This record gives sequence, structure tokens and C-alpha cells, in this order.
Amino acid sequence: MLRSCAARLRTLGSRRTRVPPPGGGPRGARRSFASEEVIDKDHALPNPSWSTDLRFLFDQFMKKCEEGSWKRLPSYKRNSTQKFQDFKTHYVDPKLLKEEQMPGAQLFTRSFEDGLGFEYVMFCNDVENRVVCFFQGGPHLQGMPGFTHGGAIAAIIDATVGTCAFRARGIVMTANLNINYKRPIPLRSVVVINSQLDKVEGRKVFVSCDVRSVKEETLYSEATGLFITLDPNKKLT
Amino acid sequence: MLRSCAARLRTLGSRRTRVPPPGGGPRGARRSFASEEVIDKDHALPNPSWSTDLRFLFDQFMKKCEEGSWKRLPSYKRNSTQKFQDFKTHYVDPKLLKEEQMPGAQLFTRSFEDGLGFEYVMFCNDVENRVVCFFQGGPHLQGMPGFTHGGAIAAIIDATVGTCAFRARGIVMTANLNINYKRPIPLRSVVVINSQLDKVEGRKVFVSCDVRSVKEETLYSEATGLFITLDPNKKLT
Repeated sequence: MLRSCAARLRTLGSRRTRVPPPGGGPRGARRSFASEEVIDKDHALPNPSWSTDLRFLFDQFMKKCEEGSWKRLPSYKRNSTQKFQDFKTHYVDPKLLKEEQMPGAQLFTRSFEDGLGFEYVMFCNDVENRVVCFFQGGPHLQGMPGFTHGGAIAAIIDATVGTCAFRARGIVMTANLNINYKRPIPLRSVVVINSQLDKVEGRKVFVSCDVRSVKEETLYSEATGLFITLDPNKKLT
Repeated sequence: MLRSCAARLRTLGSRRTRVPPPGGGPRGARRSFASEEVIDKDHALPNPSWSTDLRFLFDQFMKKCEEGSWKRLPSYKRNSTQKFQDFKTHYVDPKLLKEEQMPGAQLFTRSFEDGLGFEYVMFCNDVENRVVCFFQGGPHLQGMPGFTHGGAIAAIIDATVGTCAFRARGIVMTANLNINYKRPIPLRSVVVINSQLDKVEGRKVFVSCDVRSVKEETLYSEATGLFITLDPNKKLT
């Protein structure tokens, strides 16, 4: 059985890595340690930029976590989770790894300063094959004046349905993303992305979602995603 | 007739705004001036982060501009072009404008430091109803290790097909975006997004594009976009 979400939260708020300090010596080690602290911060936790709405939804689902049916998903700037380690080991041509290890590579949806870009937290329910994402778009995600960019909405939808597919079937890549934009999303407002696994056909994983206002009365977008589970015998190049 | 692209480039490299300095007094004015210089920088011009490939494509199309058939599209962090002014004046509920004027709102695809996010330049051919975008994804756009995030690809596709629709029919909003991802795009590689207007039916504007490698031998993605021209009698709220 999983530990309760609250217990996980206490241990997952920060991560320890075993990466050796790049600079060497005590001074380099100190700099490296400081850097790791920032890199390994779990960003799927409240920060001062979160609105009352986002905080409310977070608290509501943290209670569901304590009941055991839902689980909060931590989220980091660096792709150093087991999922990404497995991807690098089994699915990608080693010649690409050097490229990936360049300084500064960060997960797109976590590459903004707190409050400026994608503020979000995802919760999963692995029994019901669902992932819920609470998302607040910051001022650096603007499209037309006053509204969130359609590309930023596509990005957080891709992240959510991709996570839903991953929870069900392991490492996948997006094959198709089809988004209907019903209404523009005002910048800085909070939306709820509700995704669920629809079906699995061989290596194809079908997921869908809708994007609604906090009280669910406004439908902003609907989307479907098709994901393909990767074949370790066919390395990505 | 349009001036040659080279002549436009000389004048469009930086923009003068008539926004009064917010601080007032000589010291405030100086700070404001410095700030405007950064905000109004045209980002659709080469910077040191551009790879040889991106620079090559840029130079190639600048020559086409001199011949008169193509035009380079300048691009800014702030939405202060005539397009965005018209949008604010005619299509959006004034109560949203206050929100938009919050400090720091920036165009999503231009909100990164040079080289870290979306490096791109678009060229349009209004006779053929085409827009070409040359795009290099920086280290802050990572999805799976070593590859560009599917959401970042969706964002630059949305920006490109949206520009194509705008050139043809004026101010539009994305109604549908349908993307087929054929192959993952290695981080930092340059791709060419070729978009064209397919048809117009009343207020519906249909655009499509493909995303290929520099030499066009690799097809990374294909996409269609449906855009709706806005009705000034129905304000967005």
C-alpha cells in the first residue's frame, strides 16, 4: 500500500541527489550543493504566487490523498526521476545523451520563475486511470492581451494527458494531440484539467480531457491525446 | 509597395514607443528608457545563441525579402503592435484590460532569455498566403531527456499557423489545433515550419503546416489549425 499523501509530501518536498559536485573541492561542492537545492525543489507545492483558488483546490485534493484514493505527483525542473532514467537507459540512442546533459536543460513546464509561467499541481487516481491538473497561467504565458496563449494551453494539456497515459502504460511519446478551444482563458485565472484513459489498443494509448473553470461552469477546452508506448528495440535517434 | 526587407530591418531592429515614463522625473525617465529598450527589442533577429543552421536559413530568406516576395515579421515581448491594440479596442471587455496591464505580461513565445527557449523568426508571403517559421528549441523547452517538449512544439506551431491565419483574415482566435507527431525533435536542433492558408468559410479560417528538418528530409510533425475571425459585437469576457 502507498503511504498517505501527507507523509509522502513531507519526504518529497526536497530530494537528495548523489550527483558528485562538478567543481571539486570544498568551494565547488558548496556551490554545487546550493545549485542542487534549487534544481531539486518540488514545484508541485504551494508558493506565494498561488491564488486563493489554486490553493483551495490543492487543499481539497490533499484531503483526498489522505483518504487514499488520490496521490499528488511531485514535479522537478530536472528530468532525474526514475521515469526519465529509464527512458535514457532503454529508449534513446546514447549519442543524444551528451546533448541532453548540457548545462541548464530543464523541463519546459517548470522552466519559469515562480508565478511567471506554469503554476500547476497534478493528482492521479490509478484505480480510475485519471489525472487531474490544477493550472494557473502566469504573465509570461500571454497570447492575445489579457488571455493565456493557445500554445501554453496546449502545453499543459499535453503534460496532463501524457502523465495520464504514463501512469497507465509506462513511458510513452505523444503521437497526436487534438484540441478544441471553446473559450479563451483569462491570464492568471485557475483552470481544472480533468483527464482519463479512454482505451488501449496494442501500443496505442488513448486519453482525453476537458479544461474547466474552478467551479466547472465554464468549459474552456476539450482535447484528445494519442500516445505510443516506446519499443526498447527501436532506439530514438 | 513595401519597402525592401533589408530597409525594414534597419528601421525595425528597435522600436520607439511613446509610453510616458512611469517613474516621472529625470531618474525615472532614465530607468524607463532603459526598460523600454529591452522590452521593445525585435527578437526575430540573429543573436549569439543562433546555430549555424538557423543563421543560414535566416540569411537565405533575407535575400528573398530583398527580391520582394517575402517579408520578415518582427516580434516583441510586449503586445503593443497595431494588431494587439486593435484587439484590445474592439474585441475584449474593458474589465479585462486592467488584468492585461499588470507589470510583466509578455508574449509566451518571447518570454525566455536569449537562447534558452523559443528562438525563431517568421517570414510571410502574402501573395501565396504562406508563413514560414525557422525554430530552434533551447534547453528550457525539454520534454523527455534530449528532446523538445511536445507542448513547446504545439506552441510554436500554434504561433505559426495563427500568424498565417492573421495575415489572411485579420484578428483570429484558435478554435482547433490538431497535431500529428511523427518523430521526436532533438533539443537545440533547428526545424522549418511551413504553413499555408487552405480555405476560408465565412468566419472560419483553415490553415495547415508541416515541421521538417533543415534539409527537409525528415518530417517531424504535421498539423492543421482552425481559426475564427472575431466579431467586434461579441466582446470576449
